[in-house]
Amino acid sequence: MTKDNVQGAGEEEQQAQSKKALKKQQKEAEKAAKKAEKQAKLAAEQQEADEDDFAKDRYGICPMVQSQQKLDRALVRVQDLTPEKAEQQIWVRARIHTSRAKGKQCFLVLRHQQFTVQALLAVGDRASKQMVKFAANLTKESIIDVEAVVKKVEQKIESCSQQDVELHVERIFVISQSEARLPLQLEDAVRPEGEGDEQMQQEGRATVNQDTRLDNRVIDLRTTTSQAIFRLQSGVCQLFRDTLINKGFVEIQTPKIISAASEGGANVFTVSYFKTSAYLAQSPQLYKQMCICADFDKVFCVGPVFRAEDSNTHRHLTEFVGLDIEMAFNYHYHEVIDSITDTMVQIFKGLRDRFQTEIQMVNKQYPSEPFKFLEPTLRLEYKEAVAMLKAAGVEMGDEEDLSTPNEKLLGRLVKDKYDTDFYVLDKYPLAVRPFYTMPDPNNPKYSNSYDMFMRGEEILSGAQRVHDAQLLTERAMHHGIDLEKIKAYIDSFRYGAPPHAGGGIGLERVTMLYLGLHNVRQTSMFPRDPKRLTP
Amino acid sequence: MTKDNVQGAGEEEQQAQSKKALKKQQKEAEKAAKKAEKQAKLAAEQQEADEDDFAKDRYGICPMVQSQQKLDRALVRVQDLTPEKAEQQIWVRARIHTSRAKGKQCFLVLRHQQFTVQALLAVGDRASKQMVKFAANLTKESIIDVEAVVKKVEQKIESCSQQDVELHVERIFVISQSEARLPLQLEDAVRPEGEGDEQMQQEGRATVNQDTRLDNRVIDLRTTTSQAIFRLQSGVCQLFRDTLINKGFVEIQTPKIISAASEGGANVFTVSYFKTSAYLAQSPQLYKQMCICADFDKVFCVGPVFRAEDSNTHRHLTEFVGLDIEMAFNYHYHEVIDSITDTMVQIFKGLRDRFQTEIQMVNKQYPSEPFKFLEPTLRLEYKEAVAMLKAAGVEMGDEEDLSTPNEKLLGRLVKDKYDTDFYVLDKYPLAVRPFYTMPDPNNPKYSNSYDMFMRGEEILSGAQRVHDAQLLTERAMHHGIDLEKIKAYIDSFRYGAPPHAGGGIGLERVTMLYLGLHNVRQTSMFPRDPKRLTP
Repeated sequence: MTKDNVQGAGEEEQQAQSKKALKKQQKEAEKAAKKAEKQAKLAAEQQEADEDDFAKDRYGICPMVQSQQKLDRALVRVQDLTPEKAEQQIWVRARIHTSRAKGKQCFLVLRHQQFTVQALLAVGDRASKQMVKFAANLTKESIIDVEAVVKKVEQKIESCSQQDVELHVERIFVISQSEARLPLQLEDAVRPEGEGDEQMQQEGRATVNQDTRLDNRVIDLRTTTSQAIFRLQSGVCQLFRDTLINKGFVEIQTPKIISAASEGGANVFTVSYFKTSAYLAQSPQLYKQMCICADFDKVFCVGPVFRAEDSNTHRHLTEFVGLDIEMAFNYHYHEVIDSITDTMVQIFKGLRDRFQTEIQMVNKQYPSEPFKFLEPTLRLEYKEAVAMLKAAGVEMGDEEDLSTPNEKLLGRLVKDKYDTDFYVLDKYPLAVRPFYTMPDPNNPKYSNSYDMFMRGEEILSGAQRVHDAQLLTERAMHHGIDLEKIKAYIDSFRYGAPPHAGGGIGLERVTMLYLGLHNVRQTSMFPRDPKRLTP
Repeated sequence: MTKDNVQGAGEEEQQAQSKKALKKQQKEAEKAAKKAEKQAKLAAEQQEADEDDFAKDRYGICPMVQSQQKLDRALVRVQDLTPEKAEQQIWVRARIHTSRAKGKQCFLVLRHQQFTVQALLAVGDRASKQMVKFAANLTKESIIDVEAVVKKVEQKIESCSQQDVELHVERIFVISQSEARLPLQLEDAVRPEGEGDEQMQQEGRATVNQDTRLDNRVIDLRTTTSQAIFRLQSGVCQLFRDTLINKGFVEIQTPKIISAASEGGANVFTVSYFKTSAYLAQSPQLYKQMCICADFDKVFCVGPVFRAEDSNTHRHLTEFVGLDIEMAFNYHYHEVIDSITDTMVQIFKGLRDRFQTEIQMVNKQYPSEPFKFLEPTLRLEYKEAVAMLKAAGVEMGDEEDLSTPNEKLLGRLVKDKYDTDFYVLDKYPLAVRPFYTMPDPNNPKYSNSYDMFMRGEEILSGAQRVHDAQLLTERAMHHGIDLEKIKAYIDSFRYGAPPHAGGGIGLERVTMLYLGLHNVRQTSMFPRDPKRLTP
């Protein structure tokens, strides 16, 4: 079951292969053979040159690392190259970020993750002119092992993250070669947005459009900006879970393949499931509620959520990561709102305190204001929001849902008035919420439901749920829902159900809005939308 | 996007509803009306009885909790009812686990999660005979709020988790009523396996079969055994992540909907994706390797994995939770094995030290030996395993894969010889592993790949991966794989790729085998197999 194979490459497939595919493979094989021939020729030339090269054992291309030996050699990380290591002889593994030959010298910038260091190779006692030439010809993005002496520098090296030292290279071996032609240049991919676009084009300085980035994600993810975004996102998940576990929540795993029973037909992906059909879960809603009915009291889950909406916007994905919460409460659903807002505040504080480096890295390319939040979190009622919008000249009905522009405008009005980028909008009109939303006990037009916003965009939608089978039946009928299809859902509440509320958070949106980015594809490693299924 | 709706219950659905469905709804409505009528009648009777009841304000059925008020009332948890609280007047919310009337008294056992306490209601100053009758008639599994005085007891109450105190009830209100007829009885569901089956049947003591449990999971999950299993499973996830984050790993999120490109055709679920088709990922393999090629160095992910295998065994699911690891190494893939085995050891230690209560609860129903492991973890070569099996009389070829019975036999042989329930089997024959497995540099029949076992069953499969595009092409061709389909995969390695290895762990199997359970459906909250898609 846990075989982690990319594919079950078996006999069947072999048989199924068409002649056309076989031809292709022959062609590939010929190509590979030609390449091998060329490399052999190069190696022969190399050997010839080597004969009068005193440094010939100090550089070269390593055989592929196939775990031939357990080499007892410590590798120092680029980020740990500081003046404390001055005059030490060390080994480093890094990529060639840039390389520049200058007379008898070769200047390299070596990179590992978001860290860079300058390295120098000069013809002399330790390096022959062949060796310097070899280094100068290495392709960008190749991974090398270098042995070098760490040297303090007098003038800070502004272009590198390690500004106080450089490496004087004594040995240099290639671990993995990159092809010479890269589909995108890293320096283009981190260029600040819109920085004098025209001027840049005149100077031939390109930017990289989003599709090129995503098509070549394995390279795009190497930029300092991407490294920072996804390290911070890993932090969001960790902070979310740690905070909830401290609050006594239990992590649950909910199925993603579901039968039709508990879901409606709209916006759902269909899966063929042996001789029948199934669907991909649009949320873990039913399952987290079942856990509440099963006395787990406070549960959360982190997992993929699927929406078959043909929405091509900056903030919609067909598959995203849901951070979901469900919690039994004693007497009022505000107990749950308080738990969720406190969790968000712990995330914001954790990011601010532990990920400042990453935030600043992203800001270099995508400048934005620091994210502001209040304690306790601001909670407005929907009515108040409508009043604020109307006062700002918006025409809308009291029970009308917020349009995206109105959401954003409201975000600006709230920011102006309260100076916060995070707030809760409580008591939505009942009519715009799902059937299982608990009606407001005091006003049948409203409901015990809420959204949460970051920088004026929704990141969470939640509510007190109807925990009474009879009322749930009535509400479903009112919405015209086929009771037969949601029977299992309703039955869950027949054997004693605690009052409960919860909500679902979109991970990619939290990362995007916290960092002030403008497209959710920047915060999804491998985004899925109606037009993109690869890589 | 984050709307957590069970369904997008809209106009379309309303229109699509058939007359048949409408009829059903009318029937339901009639049923609901009848029920309401009956309740009204009962309420009238109640009121009549109330008139000469001095305690009438001390009990009853609460209106549904609709967040009418923010009640300033602390609720004490059942697990916190200890002798330190003796003589205190407190409020508790719990389920009615059992209820038994005896003359002018009513004995209740109240339950919250895995904790139980005895409660007593007796006719006297604080309770009328109507009130006692009311309590005695409450249905099992109903949720109630009681106000009571905590009393120390002289003789331990063996049948409850809180053995030193009982509650003297002064007020009792129903928060959520359970239907009288439960689809399964909790006491039947926790009865130890195979405990004198015949005798039990003679005495009319039932056990609950697995399908009944799973069909009524919301009740089955309330048992002490289920509560313990899934709390421990939450712990496995937490320990897995915390250990890896401490080791410098980054959590990644990988897409579950994938295009055909990187996967073969076998055992894959097909999804309709707008106007085209897509597939459900059988593993995050490609994506975690891309993250390694993108310099994240050490990554992990926790998420669903889908296998369209028509396997109906105790250990196969069509959807399970994968704990996946991928890691760049310096010179030898044993660096990665060491990281993974240490992670497993940290999980085992964490479970042993933090979840002893849960382990013992599960053992009550499903007895098993404590899980044993060594430090450092035992690592055997495949050759040695074959020799051990042959010595034990098994006939098998050197390059043959392990059958399930041989796997289990090997587990017993290893346990006898080394006294461990956890070990690594290294250096599998190349022929039985996927095409992207790195061949052994010293013997072309073997490979740099490994499985890990708990109590003789596989929980992880992993390997050093081929990180060289040319060798990967050759290996794919050797396996007869259509190169066109895996182009994106192979291209990931063209721009410099560090040597790396990894593996995928099945969460449900780890929980099952750690606890010595015998079916993976016991450790999946809502299991999916070829025959089960609900609830």
